[in-house]
Order: sequence, then structure tokens, then C-alpha cells
Amino acid sequence: MKELSVNHLLGIKYINEHDINLIFETADHFKEVINRPIKKVPSLQDITIANIFFENSTRTKLSFELAQKRLSADVINFAASQSSVTKGETLIDTVNNILSMKVDMVVMRHSSPGAAVFLSKNVKASIVNAGDGAHEHPTQALLDAYTIREKLGDVAGKKVVIVGDILHSRVALSNIYSLQKLGAEVKVCGPKTLLPKYIGELGVGVEPNLRKALEWCDVANMLRVQNERLDISYFPSTREYAMQYGVDKALLDSLQKEIVIMHPGPINRGVEITSDVADSKQSVILNQVENGVAIRMAVIYLLASKIK
Amino acid sequence: MKELSVNHLLGIKYINEHDINLIFETADHFKEVINRPIKKVPSLQDITIANIFFENSTRTKLSFELAQKRLSADVINFAASQSSVTKGETLIDTVNNILSMKVDMVVMRHSSPGAAVFLSKNVKASIVNAGDGAHEHPTQALLDAYTIREKLGDVAGKKVVIVGDILHSRVALSNIYSLQKLGAEVKVCGPKTLLPKYIGELGVGVEPNLRKALEWCDVANMLRVQNERLDISYFPSTREYAMQYGVDKALLDSLQKEIVIMHPGPINRGVEITSDVADSKQSVILNQVENGVAIRMAVIYLLASKIK
Amino acid sequence: MKELSVNHLLGIKYINEHDINLIFETADHFKEVINRPIKKVPSLQDITIANIFFENSTRTKLSFELAQKRLSADVINFAASQSSVTKGETLIDTVNNILSMKVDMVVMRHSSPGAAVFLSKNVKASIVNAGDGAHEHPTQALLDAYTIREKLGDVAGKKVVIVGDILHSRVALSNIYSLQKLGAEVKVCGPKTLLPKYIGELGVGVEPNLRKALEWCDVANMLRVQNERLDISYFPSTREYAMQYGVDKALLDSLQKEIVIMHPGPINRGVEITSDVADSKQSVILNQVENGVAIRMAVIYLLASKIK
Repeated sequence: MKELSVNHLLGIKYINEHDINLIFETADHFKEVINRPIKKVPSLQDITIANIFFENSTRTKLSFELAQKRLSADVINFAASQSSVTKGETLIDTVNNILSMKVDMVVMRHSSPGAAVFLSKNVKASIVNAGDGAHEHPTQALLDAYTIREKLGDVAGKKVVIVGDILHSRVALSNIYSLQKLGAEVKVCGPKTLLPKYIGELGVGVEPNLRKALEWCDVANMLRVQNERLDISYFPSTREYAMQYGVDKALLDSLQKEIVIMHPGPINRGVEITSDVADSKQSVILNQVENGVAIRMAVIYLLASKIK
Repeated sequence: MKELSVNHLLGIKYINEHDINLIFETADHFKEVINRPIKKVPSLQDITIANIFFENSTRTKLSFELAQKRLSADVINFAASQSSVTKGETLIDTVNNILSMKVDMVVMRHSSPGAAVFLSKNVKASIVNAGDGAHEHPTQALLDAYTIREKLGDVAGKKVVIVGDILHSRVALSNIYSLQKLGAEVKVCGPKTLLPKYIGELGVGVEPNLRKALEWCDVANMLRVQNERLDISYFPSTREYAMQYGVDKALLDSLQKEIVIMHPGPINRGVEITSDVADSKQSVILNQVENGVAIRMAVIYLLASKIK
Repeated sequence: MKELSVNHLLGIKYINEHDINLIFETADHFKEVINRPIKKVPSLQDITIANIFFENSTRTKLSFELAQKRLSADVINFAASQSSVTKGETLIDTVNNILSMKVDMVVMRHSSPGAAVFLSKNVKASIVNAGDGAHEHPTQALLDAYTIREKLGDVAGKKVVIVGDILHSRVALSNIYSLQKLGAEVKVCGPKTLLPKYIGELGVGVEPNLRKALEWCDVANMLRVQNERLDISYFPSTREYAMQYGVDKALLDSLQKEIVIMHPGPINRGVEITSDVADSKQSVILNQVENGVAIRMAVIYLLASKIK
């Protein structure tokens, strides 16, 4: 049987093209499952998973929980305030404590870049990174690439532009890794102050002009504007942002072709995209959400098979 | 097989007498189920329900969750702060996002009157209104009427007085609709400032004097005083309220007959009713809670059968 | 079949040595269960348990929840703010409300000493005390004694010192009761201001000097320093505390024998014990956590068998 090259999903950086394709094939199966009347399989009745979220999350947590329930795993939820885990040592204590209750897998979201990697080296459990600061959010990138594959037949050879705050976005970084590993061409587009200095080293193009970026691409992934960053000096106002980097129907229709519109959610309607774009048939935003459950089922299933 | 005339339970206003009786007959069955040692049926193993609560709730949420578990449905909980959903558009996005994870039914509490109706027109799922502002709280009214039927044999022809803050109460409005549809006679009793201006249009009598109201009625439904409204000028102090609209044992015993005492909970003991009234054998307050689970099982079961 | 002498677990004070040993034998069985690939038994499919936590808790609550799930019980969680239950009467109302939803057992944590006893006299359900103020935390004491039995073969005849804030600690009081009932010898060690005045009546020795206490004992149970008490005048600063009552590796190694180090968690590393002590092979801290699930399964299983 085919299996993953890793025991954890810490980031797209740490897996290879073969892993990604194996996850996709497994997700194809689970996508059928969740579209049946009985949306469950008994596969992981012998697996206990702890969801440990040190940052607030509703959508990602819900998606992971549903994926786990549909695999029939036992699930415990641990929502921790950041304050109780100021030191790495205490993070290990917290997790080891939970693992002592006979937990096989940990899905963790944490505000510190590298938290998932650190944990995987220090505790005995399979770790799934559900977002570590501005570092990686691998299941989001997998579901994004899976949605492109579903919509366009393949990821290889496609042109994808990621629009917005690249600097603070774990979604952007994980997407860049996954798209490149699958053979897509990637450009980023956003305010200069929101591009990381190391962008050149990532092997992606920079296209400051949104119209040009859209004319070039097959897929535009419109990152969410983090309103909490709006008070930071290098960030434009919401209005300026919408004017320069927002996509409306007029702009979309003026292109010579039909591009695919993606968004990791939740949408700020009228900022990154207008409502008519969000609800247009070029938008695959709700497909992304649906595919998220299938992708997470696949990741958990494949990692669990390495535990047994 | 008999079925509901509706695909959603948005309010008592939108269902008919036949619907209510079908819910009651179905609840009779489930009430037997939850009094057996194994309190579960496997009926809804193929249904996933999302509980989306934009307002705090403990009792109602617990009752819905238990009802869902006893039907073997898959349940996900989404507790959202009001702040994240200031616009109707965003409410649709939030719910559509959850529905994309293959959810069949949404139980929603929201602070805006009409939120449930709005949602039912804009998303593809069966909607159960668990309270929308001061508008309706249909399952509460159903369990109240069901408890009257259980205690007095029938609702038709019975005289029910609803005591308290009618103006702000979704419990009052839903009760007025359900009792009238089932052929009961309804009066309201409370401070003039807490009666809605449109009370005449609802076809209920107004009896400002509590003693006279109690002498007239078979059942008194004592609404909870919302302490958070006590700072509003048109609301009397708790003490004044208790003196004019509270029921104590002396008052109860001075009536020529045994009336039934109801309360939607949680009770402010010594305000709406004294402890000896709450704990008397005329009180059916805990029966209401028990019946709440059976009624909610019936509502969910009947709506789910329309999805399949 | 052997059964408990009680219908509730309100405190170690109210159970006898036979009860404790029956719990231990039952926990031996469940410890095997939770170390099997499928960690579940179908024993309590007909039992519904409400976890009612009026005080924040993560570890204890997680441990109880896992125990309940592994027994296949139905579980509902009720996290209440203290504010909503300022009077005993309202506590009864809250719990009776939940019980009316057909709940068989209540696991409760409450800030008032005696809350569990009070509840057991006023509602119809089996009560498990998960901590009532500074009074008792019986399942913690049971898992502590069980861990000593596992590590040293027996509890009888062993010398145990409890180090720290004895005055405010429900862990200390429950441990004193359980260790004495099982025939261990107990001393306490801590700042004079943190010893209760009634310590003499408990039949335990007082050893103010940590080194002497450690030289005497077989087991040292290092209580957690409650940081929220640090502003109270009779409490030393964290630094003073660590110097006088903290155990480091040098101190541990300087003893003539290998003592067992326990801690109820979460550890303040560098305060009660240093990291090298916490992670040494003399430490059984993670065993305590693991045993906690088995002990709680045993307690719930044995109490449930008295309901049926």
C-alpha cells in the first residue's frame, strides 16, 4: 500500500509531490463518502485525536472536527488561551499531559511559527499543523490545490496569482510551496509593504499591477484582508486596498478569458472581492470549503495508517 | 405517511394546527424513548446538524443537543459572537460556509427578529429557529402547549394567561400563536409599559390585574424577568414587579381552583414566583424541560424526513 | 458482584478502604482497555452524564470526558459562570433543569466547599465531585494513591509527604484522607502560613524542613503553587517559595534513596520542581495523568452500576 513519506503534516515544505498526489487520490475517495447519505466510514474507531487550538478558529476547527467524526475517530477539544503557554517548555507539558490520556494524533493551531515542528520533535504523537503563525497552513494549501485540480483537470502548468497580504499569510506561503511542487507557475500581487523581503528566494514572480496579474493567470487566490492589521502603518486603508487589489465584476468581465476565483474565507465582501464576484460561477469558494473536509479526512487517514 | 406542511420551523406563525398535532404525536413516541434505559434511536445517522448560536444559551442549546444525540444525528456546534456577523450578507456567508461541509439542518439562535426566515430564503438547508430576537421561539411554545395537553388532556378550550414582559418576549409571541391555533383562549397580564402596542391585533385579552387573571385562567405562564432590562425606565424595579406580578403560595391557595403554573426558566425565585410555588405540585416547570427534549426530537425528526 | 458502599463520590472522607480497593481493581481492568488499540467498551451506552463545571478546568474536564467516551456514555457539557449561581437554590434549579432532560449522573466542579454534598441531598442523580473549593478532589486523590500502588506495589506502610500550600488545596485534603485509609503515613511540609489550623486534627505530621521531609519519605507529592494567591500577604514570593520548598536535581540526588516525585499538574517548572526533576525517571507525573482516565472510568462505571 502506498503511504506518506512523513509521520506528521508540519508544512507543505516537508512533503513531496508524491505525498500530495497520494493525499489527493485519498481525498477523491472521501469526497464520494461525504456525498453519500451516510457520510461516515468506520476507519479510525481505534484512533483518538486531540484538537489543540491556541488561536481562535471556527471554520478550520469545524472542518477538522467533521473530518474526524466522519472517520469515526474519538475526538477531544482543547482550546487554550495563549497566556497559559508562554514558554515552549510549557507547550510540551500541555501536550504531553493530553497525550498521557492515550491520544494518537494532535491537530494544533498556534501563533508561533515553528510550533508544530518543535512539537513533533518533542512529543510522541502524529502532529498535524492547522496553522502556525505566519508560517504554514498546509491543509489549506492542499485543499486549494485540490480545488484547482478539480476545476481545471490538473495543477501542473497552470498560472496562479496570489493577491494580498503575502507577508503575514501562512496561506500564501503554503500555497506557494504546494503549487510549485505540483508544477504550477506562481506570481504574487499586493502592496509592496506586504511582500516579504525573501520573496525572490521563493521562486515566484511579483506583479504589482492587479489587472496585469489577472490577465496573466488561470486562477486568482484572493487572500483575506486581516482587519486587525489595518492600524499598522504599512497597510493601506480598506478603501485604498479595495480600489487597488479588489476584484469586481466589471474587472473580471473585462478579461479576455474566464479565470477561477478562490478565497480562503471568511470573505470581506466589497474588499477583496465584490459580492457578484464571490457568487459568480467563476468562484470556487464553497467548493474549497467542501473539499477541505475531504482533504482533512485524507490527511488524518494517511497519517493514522502510519501509527498502526 | 403524515408530514409537516413546511420544510423549516421558522415560527409558530408559519405552521398550522395539523403540523402542531403531528409534532405532538411524534413527541409522544420520543417521550417513551427517552424514558427507556437506552434513550437513543438510530433514526438520523445520515443527518448532520449544525447548531449555530449567535446569542448565548445554555438550556435551549443543551436540549437541542441532547435531542440530536438521541436521534443519532451528527452534530457540530458553532458559537459565534454577534460582532462577526453585523451584516445579513455575512450571515449567509457564515452559514453557507458551514453548509458546504455537507450539513443538512441548521438550528439557529440570533438576536435579529426575522433572521431565521431570512436564512431559509437564502441557503439550502432545513432551518430550525431556536429564537430570533423578540420575534419567535417556536420550540418553546410547542413544549409549553404539549405540557398543557399532557397535564389537562387538551389545549382546546383552555384559558391561559401569560404574565410579565410581553413586549420583549419571543416566548410570549410564539405561545400566543400556538395556543390560538390549538383553540385555547389567551390573555396577557403585565405592566402597561411592557405590553406591545399591537397587542390588540393579536386577538388576546389584556387583564392588568394579576388576581383577576389567575381567577380566570386554567394555566398561568410566568415569563422570566430579564434583569438586563431593569435599568430601562419603563420597567418597574424587581421588588415592585414581584409585588404586582409575582405569584406566591398565599395567592395561589386563595384561588377557588387549582391552576397550572408554567415558567420557561431559569426562574428568578421570589420574583416571578416564590419557591413554594415553583416546587408545588401545581408547577409543571420541570415537565416543560423534559418535554422540551421530546418536542425537539420530534421537530428534527419530521423536518429530516422531508430532506430525504 | 462487589459494589461501592456509596451512591455518590462526594469526597474520600465518605468512602472506606474497601471502596477504594474496589475502584483500584476496576481501574486495573480499564487501564488494560485504554492500552488496547480499540480503547472503548460499550458498558454505559444507557447512561447520560452531565459535566457541570462552575470553575474553569481543562485537564480534569478532559480526563472525565475521555473516561466517559471510552465507557460509551452519552455526555453533555455545561460550563456555567459562577455569577449565574450565587444562591444554593439556584444551583439546585440549574441541576434539576439538566436532570429533567433525563441525565443519570452529574460530574460537578464548584468553588464552594460542600457544593457536591449539598447537591447530592437535593437532586435525584449520582453525583461525582470534581473539586469543590478548597474541600475535596476525590478522583485526584484516588489516581495519586493508585499511582503509588502501581509504582511501589502497595500504599500501606509507605511514607508520603505533601509539599506546598496545604491550606487552600483540595488535592492535599483528599490525599490525606485516602492515604490514611490505605495505611500510609503522611506528613505535610510548607510555609507555616499555608498550613490549616486544624492540621493537628487530621492526624498528619508537620515537617517544616523540606530536606528532612524528603529524607523521611518514600513519595513526595509537590502541590502546584497557585499564582493567583501570590498577592496575598501570607504567601511568599515565587522565588522564596522555590528556594525553600522547590525540589531540584541536586537535592534529589543528595538523598540516600530514590523517592517518587508526584505533581497534580500543571507544573510551574522551576518553582515546585525543576525541569530535570519533572522529566527524571523518579517522576510519575505523566503516569498520574494516564491513571486518571482509568480511575475515572472505574468510578463512573461503579456508580452507574448502582443506578441500574
